[in-house]
Amino acid sequence: MKILIVGLGLIGGSMAKALRRAGYAPDGSDLPAVEQAALAQGVIGRAARGPHGYDVVFVALPPDAAMRYLDEETFSAGAVVADVCGVKGAVERCVYAKERAYRYVGCHPMAGKEVSGFANASAGLFDGASMIVTHAPRTDPQAVSLLEGLFRAMGFGQITRCTAAEHDAKIAYTSQLAHVVSSAYVKSGTADGFSGFTGGSFQDMTRIAGVDEGLWERLFLLNREALSAELETLISNLQDYLSALQAEDAARLRGLLRAGRLRKEHLDRERRIV
Amino acid sequence: MKILIVGLGLIGGSMAKALRRAGYAPDGSDLPAVEQAALAQGVIGRAARGPHGYDVVFVALPPDAAMRYLDEETFSAGAVVADVCGVKGAVERCVYAKERAYRYVGCHPMAGKEVSGFANASAGLFDGASMIVTHAPRTDPQAVSLLEGLFRAMGFGQITRCTAAEHDAKIAYTSQLAHVVSSAYVKSGTADGFSGFTGGSFQDMTRIAGVDEGLWERLFLLNREALSAELETLISNLQDYLSALQAEDAARLRGLLRAGRLRKEHLDRERRIV
Repeated sequence: MKILIVGLGLIGGSMAKALRRAGYAPDGSDLPAVEQAALAQGVIGRAARGPHGYDVVFVALPPDAAMRYLDEETFSAGAVVADVCGVKGAVERCVYAKERAYRYVGCHPMAGKEVSGFANASAGLFDGASMIVTHAPRTDPQAVSLLEGLFRAMGFGQITRCTAAEHDAKIAYTSQLAHVVSSAYVKSGTADGFSGFTGGSFQDMTRIAGVDEGLWERLFLLNREALSAELETLISNLQDYLSALQAEDAARLRGLLRAGRLRKEHLDRERRIV
Repeated sequence: MKILIVGLGLIGGSMAKALRRAGYAPDGSDLPAVEQAALAQGVIGRAARGPHGYDVVFVALPPDAAMRYLDEETFSAGAVVADVCGVKGAVERCVYAKERAYRYVGCHPMAGKEVSGFANASAGLFDGASMIVTHAPRTDPQAVSLLEGLFRAMGFGQITRCTAAEHDAKIAYTSQLAHVVSSAYVKSGTADGFSGFTGGSFQDMTRIAGVDEGLWERLFLLNREALSAELETLISNLQDYLSALQAEDAARLRGLLRAGRLRKEHLDRERRIV
């Protein structure tokens, strides 16, 4: 099985290293300097010029570059081709706009770091993490099955299957909204001189505020409706607390906090069951 | 030096254990069952009936109970008395409403857990953490100095000095606002079935959603103005992202994310310097 990884950044580079750890010998493609580093470290067998001739191709590029690659490159007939973008509906629509010789499967690894690039890639990045695999009427079950075997080999502990629309709705909330909140949270002037005034809550709230604005602006706009809806819900919920505070309504404030606690306990139970 | 800890919950119990670890022999006071457990574990020397006769008294009770205790109990003349409440202005106003025979110092440890009670108290809870110590015109420097020695002995790694007003403004932002956001965040219906759709951002956002509504409603209302102002700032900042999204204004959205990233990098530098 000939495997190619296109884009050897944090995700693609970690996939290459994880496959290597599992005994596979993937090839890779990136800018010359990155390819040289990957070759020198024995992470890839060779630098590939294009996807033709490969049985499995992971397209680990940012959304626009990934869509262009999936749309324009020449893949071998029947090749299993997966992207790893943080939005799935837009990529799927791009791929299924035409007949394709390759078998497409949308994927999204639930793992990352606040840093990027091949230098930060590691073989263990996905250990125990969840890989989301989307399905559509045109998805080939054998292609999915082949990929899932490779994901297990990479260390993923859980495969989560859903449609692209389900993925985009969930991710708008669990990931994109969290990035918006973190980015907005740091902007208060009160943040200056915060050191000494926190035991961890502030760090948790603001850990992901330093996002790459080029990548995340695109992810947000490609999932605009779902993210807008979540942001509206959150703002509306925050306004409930604000109005209870301003009215000095202790019972209402307590009720809002209580509902949050019960909801959190429900979600913690769900997590334990799954 | 005779030390009493009033209230042997998570904070008071941990203070007792930390002092014990450092070779001190504090007495304690709580409900009979808690006193029995603390005595049986050798955490306190004896159960005290009142604060009279003690040189140092830590009042580790929730805000209203702490203020009542500080207002009504009979302390030895010159005793150093500290509370550990999460709001400082309200407690200080209560204490300084009269002449007091004791020397009051407002304190707030930047450490906690999502669980409470003596059973969860631990000698290492404060190791490396920051202790905030507030000062006012009536604060006695020798009392502060004596307490700071005890806090170092408890394991605190940093003492942060400020006025009660500075404390309340900072804590409204670094802690209270974070609790409001976490509580509001879990309320989206999209949270159901979140497992498999997160790599950590969602857990960070929602870790503290399960707050004790009785305690935090009081802390919020006792710091209502500062918290309301922070909540208004955050809502207004979130609305900027929402309107950029709804307008599909990529440049504005990128600018908002960029400003967040630069702000985060600034704060990270500040933390490294401090």
